[in-house]
Amino acid sequence: MIDIQDFRSAMARLGAAVNVITTNGADGRFGMTASAVCSVSDDPATLLLCVNRNARMNGILKANGRFAVNVLSARQEEFSRCFADSTLSMDERFGRCGPWHNMTGELPGLTGALAVFACTVASVTEVGTHSLFIGSVEQLLLGEEDEGLVYFGRRYHALRGAAMPQALSA
Amino acid sequence: MIDIQDFRSAMARLGAAVNVITTNGADGRFGMTASAVCSVSDDPATLLLCVNRNARMNGILKANGRFAVNVLSARQEEFSRCFADSTLSMDERFGRCGPWHNMTGELPGLTGALAVFACTVASVTEVGTHSLFIGSVEQLLLGEEDEGLVYFGRRYHALRGAAMPQALSA
Repeated sequence: MIDIQDFRSAMARLGAAVNVITTNGADGRFGMTASAVCSVSDDPATLLLCVNRNARMNGILKANGRFAVNVLSARQEEFSRCFADSTLSMDERFGRCGPWHNMTGELPGLTGALAVFACTVASVTEVGTHSLFIGSVEQLLLGEEDEGLVYFGRRYHALRGAAMPQALSA
Repeated sequence: MIDIQDFRSAMARLGAAVNVITTNGADGRFGMTASAVCSVSDDPATLLLCVNRNARMNGILKANGRFAVNVLSARQEEFSRCFADSTLSMDERFGRCGPWHNMTGELPGLTGALAVFACTVASVTEVGTHSLFIGSVEQLLLGEEDEGLVYFGRRYHALRGAAMPQALSA
C-alpha cells in the first residue's frame, strides 16, 4: 500500500499544464482549475480529465455531459488561483476572469488561453478517489503563441513559448 | 471532425512532464519516452499512461502487465532523446542511460529520476489511436529534489525545483 502523502509528494514532481475546466448545460455554468488533463487519441481527437469524486464539478460534469479545457498562459496564473478558490461563487470566478466567448454547446471559452478544447463526455470511469472523463473534442481554438503555465514542485512556473518542429515519439 | 495536425498543434500548448517508461517481464525489457502520463487516484495510488497502438511498447506492456514511470529531471534531457530514438536498440538505450536499479517486478528504475512509480496494469482501454493503461502503483521512489523537465511548444524546458506547500484544488 502506498501512503497518500508520499504519492502526492511524488506526483508534485510530475509537472503539468494548468487549465480552467468549464462546463455548461442542465446543471448550469461551472468552472474549476485542474492539471489532470492528458491527450489520449489523435484520431478521433480525444483527451481525458480526472476529477475528484468529492468535487462539485464531478456531478455537474456528468449532468451536463460536456466541458471545455482552457489551457492557461503564464499571464493567466491569477485565473488558476481564482478557479481554485472555494470561497468564491461561480459568478465571482467568471466575473473576475475572462473575457469569455461561447464555444459549441455554450461552453465558456477563455479568451487569451493558449488553446481551448470543447468536448462532449464520451465515457466516465470511476477509479478510486477520482472519475476519469474521456472527452471527444468537438471544437478547437488555438490562441496566440504565449508563455505556458506549469505547476511543478507545488508552485507555478512560466514557460517561454517556442516552436522547434520536433516531436516526441509515440 | 477535428484535423489531426490542428489537434497536435493545440496539444503542443499543453506542457507535460517527460518520462521514460520502462517494462520487464514475459516480453522482455523495453523502454520509451512518454509525456502522456497523468495522476488518477490518491487512494489507491493510481496513474495512467497513454500509448500509441502502433508503438512496440503497446503489445509489450500488455504482455508484461507492469511498467515503471521514471520522471526525468532537467539534467536527464538526453535520456529522453535516447529513449525516443527509434534507431537505437533496447540494449543501446539502456546502456547509454542510467544507472539503473531494480524496482519490484524487476522493473528498471532510473537513478536520479525525480520520482519512480512502479505499477501493475489494472486495465487497458482502447481509445482511437491509443491504448489507455491504468496502473496501480505498487512501489514509489522519491529522488533528490532537482530541476524538472517539461515538453512544451515542441521543445524541452527546465523547471527550477521549489517546495512552496501549496496545493491545487480537486
